[in-house]
Amino acid sequence: MTERMESTESVRAIALAAKAASRELGTTTGEKRNQALAAMAQALRARAPEIVAENSLDMEAARRAGTAESLLDRLMLDESRVEAMAAALEDLMVLPDPLGTVQVHRELYNGIELDRVSVPLGVVAMVYEARPNVTADAAGICIKTGNACVLRGGSLAARSNAVIARLLHEAAVGVGMPRNCIRALETTDRSATDELMALHGIVDVLIPRGGAGLIRHCVEHSKVPVIETGTGNCHVYVHASADEDMACAIVLNAKCRRYGVCNAAETLLVDRSIARSFLPGMLSALAHEGVLMHCDEEAYDCAIWTRDESGRTGIELNFVRATDEDWATEYLAPEIAVKCVDGIDEAIEHINRYGTKHSEAIVASDDGAAGRFVAGVDAAAVYVNASTAFTDGGEFGMGAEIGISTQKLHARGPFALEALTSYKYVLRGSGQVRM
Amino acid sequence: MTERMESTESVRAIALAAKAASRELGTTTGEKRNQALAAMAQALRARAPEIVAENSLDMEAARRAGTAESLLDRLMLDESRVEAMAAALEDLMVLPDPLGTVQVHRELYNGIELDRVSVPLGVVAMVYEARPNVTADAAGICIKTGNACVLRGGSLAARSNAVIARLLHEAAVGVGMPRNCIRALETTDRSATDELMALHGIVDVLIPRGGAGLIRHCVEHSKVPVIETGTGNCHVYVHASADEDMACAIVLNAKCRRYGVCNAAETLLVDRSIARSFLPGMLSALAHEGVLMHCDEEAYDCAIWTRDESGRTGIELNFVRATDEDWATEYLAPEIAVKCVDGIDEAIEHINRYGTKHSEAIVASDDGAAGRFVAGVDAAAVYVNASTAFTDGGEFGMGAEIGISTQKLHARGPFALEALTSYKYVLRGSGQVRM
Repeated sequence: MTERMESTESVRAIALAAKAASRELGTTTGEKRNQALAAMAQALRARAPEIVAENSLDMEAARRAGTAESLLDRLMLDESRVEAMAAALEDLMVLPDPLGTVQVHRELYNGIELDRVSVPLGVVAMVYEARPNVTADAAGICIKTGNACVLRGGSLAARSNAVIARLLHEAAVGVGMPRNCIRALETTDRSATDELMALHGIVDVLIPRGGAGLIRHCVEHSKVPVIETGTGNCHVYVHASADEDMACAIVLNAKCRRYGVCNAAETLLVDRSIARSFLPGMLSALAHEGVLMHCDEEAYDCAIWTRDESGRTGIELNFVRATDEDWATEYLAPEIAVKCVDGIDEAIEHINRYGTKHSEAIVASDDGAAGRFVAGVDAAAVYVNASTAFTDGGEFGMGAEIGISTQKLHARGPFALEALTSYKYVLRGSGQVRM
Repeated sequence: MTERMESTESVRAIALAAKAASRELGTTTGEKRNQALAAMAQALRARAPEIVAENSLDMEAARRAGTAESLLDRLMLDESRVEAMAAALEDLMVLPDPLGTVQVHRELYNGIELDRVSVPLGVVAMVYEARPNVTADAAGICIKTGNACVLRGGSLAARSNAVIARLLHEAAVGVGMPRNCIRALETTDRSATDELMALHGIVDVLIPRGGAGLIRHCVEHSKVPVIETGTGNCHVYVHASADEDMACAIVLNAKCRRYGVCNAAETLLVDRSIARSFLPGMLSALAHEGVLMHCDEEAYDCAIWTRDESGRTGIELNFVRATDEDWATEYLAPEIAVKCVDGIDEAIEHINRYGTKHSEAIVASDDGAAGRFVAGVDAAAVYVNASTAFTDGGEFGMGAEIGISTQKLHARGPFALEALTSYKYVLRGSGQVRM
């Protein structure tokens, strides 16, 4: 029934229905919203076979279309993955209610009592790719924060998303949440995203979760405010004062812990003065992990020397000459750009020019240099003597990370539930008028 | 010299120069930035005759072009207005430094010390109309918050803005601020605004200050994040439980204190059950102030009755039938729409449909009704038994209001210096890598 309704409704009509739901949702208690989360988790568990069955159809179609293995893995659901989605919904229940918090209380000179109180944003639109777990995740986060949501998942996951959204909606409505509090768009063509982006005044925020192309498209065309997430062209800068063993360990971790993540290092910057002592060991270690190196001239010379010296150890050193394009590339792969710099000013300038304001690290034992780096680099997270791999809501001690913002307004860096709230000023008087 | 540079530079080049300045500006101390504010104030005072002379040329041209008196008044500068601009810059000096505040400190499980520290946004673009005092105001606020600014004022004030920006820039640079920290665009055609709006990644935030048309244009077309300000279609709702004298005083104040402001009431909603007792006195009082009333059917009947009854008092009652358009109109004039509603639900629905999420008031002695109104109305400021005229940074106890935001992200309601800051996470370790 829900499915039939959606397929004939316009994106605008769906968003308006969600807007109406959001009015009611915004006045529910935290307890009620937690009950909804429990019911939603329960529904996923109880109906796991149905979800897995729909997912199999998505998988079949995706395989027939020649989808890459890595995408298929993101798309695939089995009972244990459904269980993980349910558990994630329950994890939200124990977090404090983000609504109704009095952030500021003040009695004005005229006796008016002013409170600044946290409230939901209203309607949250999420646009994402073929990861059906995001459907449950986004719906849960929105219910927890009292927001209605409009979800637009990738076409590869259309059946999976539809059944998950329908079950979650039924479960939430079953315990008293308003109808239309969770809506998934059935149309998965790009025009649906474009329609969503035009709904200024109806949709309160748009959060794209996906590749750089999707995010850029949203930032450039949305009339609805966007929280820009994700792309990370991160650097590790090894200062002349660095402990070289520490630097090597940090670079390896930042580059090789996981290749496909936004907090992975993509460029290594090294002070020219220590290049000859530091780089041979560093490049060997990267070669040992199978990393392809895009080297500037000086690093290239080091690589040749390292290859010749280490030829007998049997490690194959893969390196090419870097082009300007490499400095701006987020490889998301076992590749790294390597560049020598004439000290901290050049390092900061390079990072501010090519970085994506995500995560940047310096390895240095000189506190003055570290301080200048921290002050001069424009990024959400700046590290001194630690790996960029820590940029993550969980590692930062937040609950329920939604994404990592690379913009500066509203939310920066890893963001969680509070980013889906706003506030209102409530002023209670006894007839005050302004002179 | 500065002027000549600007006239040949593209908007993009100016913004890039401001970006470079912002890097340096972001690392200055609060003390240094206060010194700049003092020097800027001093420069305005010392060069007041020059400013007034340039302004006279703007005024002459504007008069020749047949500009309305109200606009001419906003445009005009005399020595006392220049003095007020200088004093406003000095007022900023006593406010606490908004930068470098440690908002969160946490030692992570692995020993990394995490700090969330306030930082400038970077480059702030302000687009405004023919009010040259905004040039000084915006430049001062940006220097205080460590942001470089790109200012695009109205064409009527071109000469005034140019001289003010040049003097302020010289003064700031004279005490050590980076060159290009304050830049005014000389081109005042609309395309300059459009170019600014396209500079995502260079300009960090765009704040339009002006009429509804300008703001809508920016919201719809900007790739740079916008803080939406200003338009206020505000309501006063008189609940059946209201103290009618209090309600009358609040409506009069909210409507008539100043007509041209965004916190003025534009629609009066009255519970039908008290319309016959409340409206005749209310409409007489509004008529006494010369307010034209756009009445729904029931209010129209009350107005006829009131006119007939009060004919002998000599007050002329001006009223017409309201159309649907009236509910959505921000008159900014001695006009008000008047509508009877069937209780609080209809009132909330009407406000959420037609309001601009600015300021909304209920007059009620019933606490339950007040609570429902506060929870149900979606606006930056919601009043119980007080006038909407209080929505103002100064009245709310903030220093240096920049504007009143009607969006929900980043800043809502009256916003001040903190809205021009972001934060970064600074993580200091001793070689930590992530498992």
